Parts: sequence; structure tokens; C-alpha cells
Amino acid sequence: MTDSADRPVLAIDIGGTKLAAALVEESGRITAYDRVPTPNEPGRDAEDLWRALDALLGKVVAEGGAPGLAGVGVGCGGPMTWPAAEVSPLNIPAWRGFPLRQRLRERHPGLPVRVHNDAICVAAGEHWLGAGRGRANVLGMVVSTGVGGGLVLGGRLVDGASGNAGHIGHVIVEPDGPPCGCGGRGCLEAVARGPGLVAWAREQGWRPGEPSGTGVELAADARDGEPVAVAAMRRAGRALGIAIASATHLCDLEVVAIGGGVSQTGPPLFDPLRDAFDAHARMEFARRLEIVPAALGQPAGLIGAAALIFAPGRYWNAD
Amino acid sequence: MTDSADRPVLAIDIGGTKLAAALVEESGRITAYDRVPTPNEPGRDAEDLWRALDALLGKVVAEGGAPGLAGVGVGCGGPMTWPAAEVSPLNIPAWRGFPLRQRLRERHPGLPVRVHNDAICVAAGEHWLGAGRGRANVLGMVVSTGVGGGLVLGGRLVDGASGNAGHIGHVIVEPDGPPCGCGGRGCLEAVARGPGLVAWAREQGWRPGEPSGTGVELAADARDGEPVAVAAMRRAGRALGIAIASATHLCDLEVVAIGGGVSQTGPPLFDPLRDAFDAHARMEFARRLEIVPAALGQPAGLIGAAALIFAPGRYWNAD
Repeated sequence: MTDSADRPVLAIDIGGTKLAAALVEESGRITAYDRVPTPNEPGRDAEDLWRALDALLGKVVAEGGAPGLAGVGVGCGGPMTWPAAEVSPLNIPAWRGFPLRQRLRERHPGLPVRVHNDAICVAAGEHWLGAGRGRANVLGMVVSTGVGGGLVLGGRLVDGASGNAGHIGHVIVEPDGPPCGCGGRGCLEAVARGPGLVAWAREQGWRPGEPSGTGVELAADARDGEPVAVAAMRRAGRALGIAIASATHLCDLEVVAIGGGVSQTGPPLFDPLRDAFDAHARMEFARRLEIVPAALGQPAGLIGAAALIFAPGRYWNAD
Repeated sequence: MTDSADRPVLAIDIGGTKLAAALVEESGRITAYDRVPTPNEPGRDAEDLWRALDALLGKVVAEGGAPGLAGVGVGCGGPMTWPAAEVSPLNIPAWRGFPLRQRLRERHPGLPVRVHNDAICVAAGEHWLGAGRGRANVLGMVVSTGVGGGLVLGGRLVDGASGNAGHIGHVIVEPDGPPCGCGGRGCLEAVARGPGLVAWAREQGWRPGEPSGTGVELAADARDGEPVAVAAMRRAGRALGIAIASATHLCDLEVVAIGGGVSQTGPPLFDPLRDAFDAHARMEFARRLEIVPAALGQPAGLIGAAALIFAPGRYWNAD
């Protein structure tokens, strides 16, 4: 007989670019992993997507050869109803109100199935086993195509009224700033998301090489000292520093862990970030905040999805 | 024999203007109350202040004629170490690192003594028995000489790493805005605190009557349509709306309850507040937020101080 403590979690990460799944042990060790491109082409419908996910899960579970599962944990792009997890990911047009949790429960009868926002899972992973481990008050951030996050206070993941707590990307950093995808204006995400930085840099005369002009290339150019790329990262860093100062004033944080593609830029991003934070966060309690790179890298979301199952109470406080 | 449930809490509210104390029953009913001006003149020392407080407490307890106390709950101006409550209230220069909790424990041996920030006590009171009652995710705000607050998430008061969570007054609303008393710049408090509004209105040509020129008078002038006073309140309302949008994006709140003198202004403050909130909070979850006036008025802080004793777990999670 197998003790449930020995069983892995089937962890799933659902985004607009790829679907990823893994078996994650209670130690955080990943014993099986696979991914497929999200079948996101025009004309694909909700069931096409579900079939691709279903096949991926079958393959990962078979690869792991596990005798059973402890549960199914999922990070998925928002928005979604929560905790029911009828999902409508911005970058997956085929799923609008798709009953993801219910479908996974039908696929895995008798097992706990828990779904949360993908950025919240990253934050949970970083708190459980990454840069926020052992700290009670942590903001985990993902600065990438968007800017997302998740909040742990008093040692517990904060869900808020509707599972939407942690939206650091929509803390306002320039009240009259650029329009944001959320419909507002001057949000951190409007300024600091990768595509926004690239667009700003192009307007200022940045001429990326072929074929890309991505945030990764902008980051590389900033590290090489290209003046417009440096200015773009200074702009992003300042916005991040202001938003983090507001967040720690409101929540009295110990650690902010920053991951995601843009965060790989290094000093051209983090130096102006710290300058802006230092200028705005003057009270002693706020100045104690540690701002650090995320520690888990790409698997953070899968590890956090597993935490929803392995550490309820800390990371899951819903039905 | 008296059941502890019948015993009132000795609730204390310590500010730069007055010291107030009350006996508060578990229903929230106040059965005895008194206050004295804070002996805050230059030359007064820490023990002068303590003696004034000690006399006030003796008087209130005698007035109540209670057979015993359930405990002592205190709201005090910050900053302070927490939960040890060595207090250094900005507006009480004679107390710097004053061991308030320890002194009250010596005065009331064997009873629980719990001290928190005064704005946090107001928020706890509004959550326990006021505008946030029965809701799990609430921000309580005080907009007055300063702008303070306290945060309840998942039905529990958020303390943060050092008891300083809830500093909504230092959410940044204008990155290049006016300098703030905290040492930063562009904080909500720098824009929306009463004295800041009065100073701004005077610069813009507002001519208050004699003898005052207070925030109360500015509010009255705004209600009468005096253009500079209206503009000052529009400025404050806009800053409040932006900060509240940031807060609900980060914390997914249900209710924001706003109290304090400036909040008495009514529509000239709340209309631009809602306009700014509506412009910046576009996502569905944020738009569900209810922004309401605080319900308890002046006694909110004393009632919240009593909640620290009557409802630990919800309002007290420290030693």
C-alpha cells in the first residue's frame, strides 16, 4: 500500500504559448515533465484545447509510472471565476468560461483538483521552496509579457474576495501614463511589460537586429549599454520600484521575489528599480524589504501548482 | 463569580491631541468614557504623560464600576515596535521608545494587554462592528491630519512583518508629487491630508475666515462651492481614488470604509474619488468594490482597541 505522502501531484501550467505538465513530489522534485504548444490557432475550439491537454497529461502520468496521484494542481492564465475555475485566459481565445476544474475532476475522480492564477502559482512556488522560503510576508512577481504576482501575508497565500489578490501589475505608477490592457491607465504593467518596453524603445529609435525585436533582445542591448535600451529598462525599473514601494507600505512585506523574462535583464533593470524604491520607501519598516530575483526559474509555476495540493492552509483556503 | 464574557475591555486611544479611554462591552457598547488633552507642551516628559494617562484610566474604571476587566486594548499613534509596543508617536515628542505595553501590563497584572497602531484599531473597529462587518476583505481608512489605515484580508487583520501593514497613506499617487512627511514623495498622505489640502488651497488663493483655516473649514467651503476649495477636494479625491484602485488591484478588496475629518466633506470629495477610481479600476473584480463612509465615527478606535481583546485570531495574531 502506498502512503499518500509518497504520491506526486500532477501539476499543470496553462498559458497562451504552451501547456506544461509535471509530476511533482512533496520535496518539490520533478520526476516527469512534458509540454506542447498551446493549440491556439484561429479556428481551434475549446475541445481541441482540452484534447491536447488530456493527451499531455496522459503522457506525463505514464512517463512517471506513479502508483497514484496526491491530487491535481493547476496554474492558468486569468481571468477566471475562483475557486470554481471557469477560465477565460486572455491569451487563449478558445476558452471562455471553460469549466477547467470540473473537467479535471471528471478526469480524476476522488482526487483534490485545485486551480489558481498562473502568477499566483509562481508566487506560491517561490514562497514554498524558492526565494521567499521561510518568510511570512512575500510578494512574488512575474515581469514578462504581462506583470503578474501573488501575495503571501502572515504565512498564507492571500486570495482576496474573488481569488484575484496579487495583481501588482495594476498598481498605478503614472496616473496619466500609457493606457493599460486592463482598460485603465498608468498601471505598472502598461509601463513595464516586455512588449510595452519594446514598443517604447522603437518609438525612441531603437533598431533591433533581425528577426526579433523581443524583450530578450532589448534586455541584451541594455546590458551592452545601448542608450535607448538602457533608457527603456530605466523606465521599467523606476515603475517597478514605485509599485513595490506602494505594495510594501500597504502590506509590510519582507521579501519581493521578481522573476519572468524581463527580470533577466539584471543591473540595467534592478539598479533603477532600487533607486526608485529607495527614493519612495523611506520609513524604517519599508527599508528593511529585500528585493531579490526569483529562485526557481521556469518550473516555479508547476511547483506552486503542486503546493496548492501539498500545503493547503498555506496555499489553498477554498472549497 | 463573574464570567469573563461579562467583563468589559479597558480601551484606550492615544493621540497627539487627546487621550481617550472607555469601557467597552463585548457587544461594542461603551459604558464609561472620558478624555483629557494630551499634555504635549514643550517641557513635558514621558512620565508626565504617563501620569495623565494613569489618572484617566483610574477615573474611567471607577466610573464604570466594573467588577473586573477582560483586558486592556490600545490604539496609539505610530511608529512603534510591534507587538512589544515601545511607542514613539510622531505627534507626542515626549514618548520616544516609551514601553507602553509593559507599563500597562504592570498596571494590570494578569490581564491581556494589546497595543496596535491607532488607524489599525479604527479599521478593526469598522470591520468588527461597523461598515465592514461580515465582509472578509476590507480596508479601513482615516483621512484627517494624516492618512492611515488597516487591512483585513480573509477575515483577519493583516499585521505584516512588523505590525505596519495598512499604510495606505504611503501608496504613491504622484511619483513626482509633493514631498511627504515620511521622507518620500507623492504619497497619498502628502496630497490628501487635511493640512496639505489647506496649504495647497492657500497657495491657490483660498482665503479662509477667522480664526481658523482648518480642513473642516475648507470642507465647508467646498460644500458651498467655493472654487479653490472645490479644486482642493477634487485633488484629494483623485488621489484617494488612485490609491484605492491600486490597493484593490493588489488585495482584491470588497469594502473600503473611509473615516476621519476630511472624509466628512461629502460629495465634493467622494465624487472625484469615484471618478478617479472608475477611470483606473476597470477589471470586473475591482469594479465590485464598495467604497463607503465609515460607520462608527469617533469611537471607532476605542471599539477596535476592544476588538484586539474580544476577538483575537481575527484582530490579534501576536504574542
